[in-house]
Amino acid sequence: MKILVTGAAGMIGQKLCARLAQDSALGGRTISSLHMVDVAAPVLAAAAFPVTVEAADIADPRLAPRLMASRPDIIFHLAAIVSGEAELDFDRGYAINLDGARLLLDAIRAENLKSSGAYRPRFVFASSIAVFGAPFPDAITDDFHLTPLTSYGTQKAIDELLLSDYTRKGFVDGVGIRLPTICVRPGRPNAAASGFFSNIIREPLVDRTATLPVPDTVRHTHATPRAAVGFLLHAATLDGERIGPRRNLSMPGVSVTVGEQIEALRRVAGDRAVALIERKPDALISRIVSGWPEKFTACRAIELGFVAETSFDDIIRTHIDDELGGTIP
Amino acid sequence: MKILVTGAAGMIGQKLCARLAQDSALGGRTISSLHMVDVAAPVLAAAAFPVTVEAADIADPRLAPRLMASRPDIIFHLAAIVSGEAELDFDRGYAINLDGARLLLDAIRAENLKSSGAYRPRFVFASSIAVFGAPFPDAITDDFHLTPLTSYGTQKAIDELLLSDYTRKGFVDGVGIRLPTICVRPGRPNAAASGFFSNIIREPLVDRTATLPVPDTVRHTHATPRAAVGFLLHAATLDGERIGPRRNLSMPGVSVTVGEQIEALRRVAGDRAVALIERKPDALISRIVSGWPEKFTACRAIELGFVAETSFDDIIRTHIDDELGGTIP
Repeated sequence: MKILVTGAAGMIGQKLCARLAQDSALGGRTISSLHMVDVAAPVLAAAAFPVTVEAADIADPRLAPRLMASRPDIIFHLAAIVSGEAELDFDRGYAINLDGARLLLDAIRAENLKSSGAYRPRFVFASSIAVFGAPFPDAITDDFHLTPLTSYGTQKAIDELLLSDYTRKGFVDGVGIRLPTICVRPGRPNAAASGFFSNIIREPLVDRTATLPVPDTVRHTHATPRAAVGFLLHAATLDGERIGPRRNLSMPGVSVTVGEQIEALRRVAGDRAVALIERKPDALISRIVSGWPEKFTACRAIELGFVAETSFDDIIRTHIDDELGGTIP
Repeated sequence: MKILVTGAAGMIGQKLCARLAQDSALGGRTISSLHMVDVAAPVLAAAAFPVTVEAADIADPRLAPRLMASRPDIIFHLAAIVSGEAELDFDRGYAINLDGARLLLDAIRAENLKSSGAYRPRFVFASSIAVFGAPFPDAITDDFHLTPLTSYGTQKAIDELLLSDYTRKGFVDGVGIRLPTICVRPGRPNAAASGFFSNIIREPLVDRTATLPVPDTVRHTHATPRAAVGFLLHAATLDGERIGPRRNLSMPGVSVTVGEQIEALRRVAGDRAVALIERKPDALISRIVSGWPEKFTACRAIELGFVAETSFDDIIRTHIDDELGGTIP
């Protein structure tokens, strides 16, 4: 089984490729090769199968036909300009996030037609909850409409529509998964408006302070990097017949308030960790966050076997296991 | 006020332009010129303002920048490859229905940027209920998701997303209206799967037989060509602030069963007209129609002042007034 991963140098892309290298198989089939593509060449620890790494621009129209000429069995399309960047650079956002995906689908279609339909790979697309725009119901159901309030969300929503139509026409076998916010995000605090959701857990766990810019009552849905990789692997091997024509799925996650995140931190790491959270209300961040979804029913994804953590305590413990070697100071 | 109409040779486009010529004004402002574009040069009766007709391909990337260089105040974008054709010719469908709309929006954006935001025209987009795909609830609410089951519906749904994002960014002032099935459609019976909804009314009214391929229990939503033109004119003059960020609206219409259509025909034109309907069940057409929406709440459109007929009797009478000179044999 040949696997292609775009956006392979990103946080999730790296973890996905590391997991593929560790498992050497996917859905019971041995992996024969892995092609990792990103704007900067990705790095991978040794695998039992040949790994190709490549620095390339997904918006370059020459790239996709070349990538698909080798007919990968499974394509994980994770490459994207992130939300803030797509908002600042309108043209680049559309070029990468919309045209990039369309070029890949069109290149797959070309191989599909050349092979009289025999080549029809599974295409796993990392969509985002940014396809939704406020106002929301209490919990977003699987039939709630997509009214994105960012160019990034618009581009992802368009990609979802293309994926469904190309799948319906038999050119590809696509599955789009809308990832919730990834928490606890490893690495250093960053400037993303959503950063604090991770910062207030990750930093206190290693005795550093973290800033909380929103009230404790803010509710949000979270899944760990490990759960996100699990979603991608499950989407890669799921029976297409079971999914039906609605090929884009909101993923499950743990919906908690910031106050509940903090209480989970207290249970796992004690009062001393909680004391490292500094409340500094920020009106801008509060306003941005108020436009984000709070909760999903994710009924279809759960029925189809996608599994998230069941409590925020679990989310913290997974972070300790995966990033801190299983222990905290 | 300068007006541009694409798809101006289509049934709705012709009626829209005739109405503009008749009114000589729109939303209280005098029309200074009208530019009509279609693949075949449209024809227009005399107007009190200069009218330009042009045969051009909306997918030609040189066209949109030229059309927008004259900075029309209002653009009615009706040009499209119809559903059946978009299904047969995948590339052409995407080129006209997706890229055509995107080229127009990008050309408007270019003029908007050149004018430092001063040029921001109202862009009225004729979307379609084909953006929805079965299974449906009893009535489709304004927050029901778009899961089109045709390439045409996919392309219209993508255009809606682009329209919203370009509007949100301030490049254009877009309004998308999802037209219900137009009934009674003038002209001769055609091969469209939806043709019978009009045929069973239009033909018996002039003493001709018509074929009914589906059971009397089939439910569908209808609006007259006159109502559709009214929707377009209202969308052109509606206060953008009142619409808010969700720029695409399902239009109201009359939701009736085929049996109710027939009883309305009986009330308006008597038993003799009804006797001209020949029942010839067609499994394929029945199957296609079963995937179509039956009913819309259209709450937002109604609140915003879009007005449809209130009964199928009214729909028949409007047809008699507009197409048959007010009387039937």
